[in-house]
Amino acid sequence: MDQQTLRRLIGEKAEEVNRLLAHALPEEKGENAEVLRAMSYSTEAGGKRLRPLILLHVGDLYGADRKLTEPFAVALELIHTYSLVHDDLPAMDNDDLRRGKPTTHKVFGEGMAVLAGDGLLNYAYETALEAFRHANDQEGTDRVVQALEVLMKNAGVHGMIGGQCADLMAEKEEPASPADTVLYIHEHKTAAMMESAFQIGAILGGASAEDTENLKQIATDVGVAFQIRDDILDIEGDSTLLGKPVGSDIEEGKLTFPAVSGMEKAKAEVERRTDHALSLLGTLSVQDAFLQALIVSLTGREY
Amino acid sequence: MDQQTLRRLIGEKAEEVNRLLAHALPEEKGENAEVLRAMSYSTEAGGKRLRPLILLHVGDLYGADRKLTEPFAVALELIHTYSLVHDDLPAMDNDDLRRGKPTTHKVFGEGMAVLAGDGLLNYAYETALEAFRHANDQEGTDRVVQALEVLMKNAGVHGMIGGQCADLMAEKEEPASPADTVLYIHEHKTAAMMESAFQIGAILGGASAEDTENLKQIATDVGVAFQIRDDILDIEGDSTLLGKPVGSDIEEGKLTFPAVSGMEKAKAEVERRTDHALSLLGTLSVQDAFLQALIVSLTGREY
Repeated sequence: MDQQTLRRLIGEKAEEVNRLLAHALPEEKGENAEVLRAMSYSTEAGGKRLRPLILLHVGDLYGADRKLTEPFAVALELIHTYSLVHDDLPAMDNDDLRRGKPTTHKVFGEGMAVLAGDGLLNYAYETALEAFRHANDQEGTDRVVQALEVLMKNAGVHGMIGGQCADLMAEKEEPASPADTVLYIHEHKTAAMMESAFQIGAILGGASAEDTENLKQIATDVGVAFQIRDDILDIEGDSTLLGKPVGSDIEEGKLTFPAVSGMEKAKAEVERRTDHALSLLGTLSVQDAFLQALIVSLTGREY
Repeated sequence: MDQQTLRRLIGEKAEEVNRLLAHALPEEKGENAEVLRAMSYSTEAGGKRLRPLILLHVGDLYGADRKLTEPFAVALELIHTYSLVHDDLPAMDNDDLRRGKPTTHKVFGEGMAVLAGDGLLNYAYETALEAFRHANDQEGTDRVVQALEVLMKNAGVHGMIGGQCADLMAEKEEPASPADTVLYIHEHKTAAMMESAFQIGAILGGASAEDTENLKQIATDVGVAFQIRDDILDIEGDSTLLGKPVGSDIEEGKLTFPAVSGMEKAKAEVERRTDHALSLLGTLSVQDAFLQALIVSLTGREY
């Protein structure tokens, strides 16, 4: 699949997710209207909708009922959105802008931004729960329970929140083993939500345990490789424009793979993980050119 | 039931909840240890454990499997705890102490307190989900799904978070209809979590739709009456000690029922709601002296 086709498909699928999100949140009226407005504002702020579009696409590949996958796709994006709202707070990353728009706490105030994040997380699970209504038998119900377990674990202290904790601690003092910590952060803060994206559609479609496990490993590799590549581009971009030396990130307290292990090892790690993900993709019972092109694009093997 | 027996039973039941909570959270080790420590600290800070002990007690009355009710009791207390952690943040109520101990953000920092609250909310639902493992048939599974729906709705934008939103907005500017807003806040911020406490055990025990609905109404009445009584005691205590006039709360931006509608109407409302709750209690298919004594004690009809 060429890059142009890939970009067109990603755009179409993201639009599909945007249509689902437009109807996902409650109408903004009544005594709780302000928190609903803050939730909508945060959700509409955009983004690539990568996680939900992957979830829907994998679900389609395994023949999952859209009535089951759509609530989970919406839930996954709402969880991603809440994590950004809380991450942007002054007590965390203290960001005033996200994608060129004022962050939620700049528009609605800090207290309302805390509530909006809480509301998005809670509403995500309320939305995912709707899938039970469309699970027609015990097998369908079991799949929804398993999908909920994956969604919740990857968002929680053993997933994304765990990664955010390690990230916050690493900013305060250098960890005992920076290489281990940076990998933990990437695997939990970035890759865990990718695991939900790659696994949940398959679970809801009744994929084999083997395929589900391989999709999880693909997601981990893609998530970590994507994050390392991002850090590589950051440094290489900077070194060209500003002459900033490799490794200066660590002095700013930002823990990155290239800063900790060097540029050469970082590039090799991206390559190794991308190759591993693509080779696992080939073992699945379903074959798909879109996922292959997406993985290559996300991990960007070309430098 | 006399007050002494009631207090002893409440103490015993709270201890039972404390034992469940002691094993509820993950071991504090690894890269995410700090957020787990902050979650434990917040949860161990104590409190009356009223909501989970009511949930377990009502579940026992309806013969619910303890393997089903215990995860929900723990989840309900974790949700209550997260709401306190986020409520205490500088951006919200800005409290340094809770029950005589430094609040979570004073001990762990604001960023970690945001994460700990998020972690508690997410882990609450992970814990409740464990009930599915003990639901042996389709009927049991359906009950767990229904219990999850009630738990999530009452915690979210149509429940507690909705109430917190209205409360936060009322502090900024006086609402158009203060009497309506104060009732909305009590029904959502206080009573919604009581509804979970009174309803979920019954649902998991297979109570009739009629009993479940009556328990919801009892919880609303008890929650609202409890809150109004609290505000009455605040004012009467103050007016005795400080000569603070009734209605001064509204000038401080605090919206209370007695401040909005006057002391006489407030006392009548507590009495009306307590009588209503006790009369509904008499219509249930189960009869219980503990719940009756608890309601009288919580709403404190004696002034």
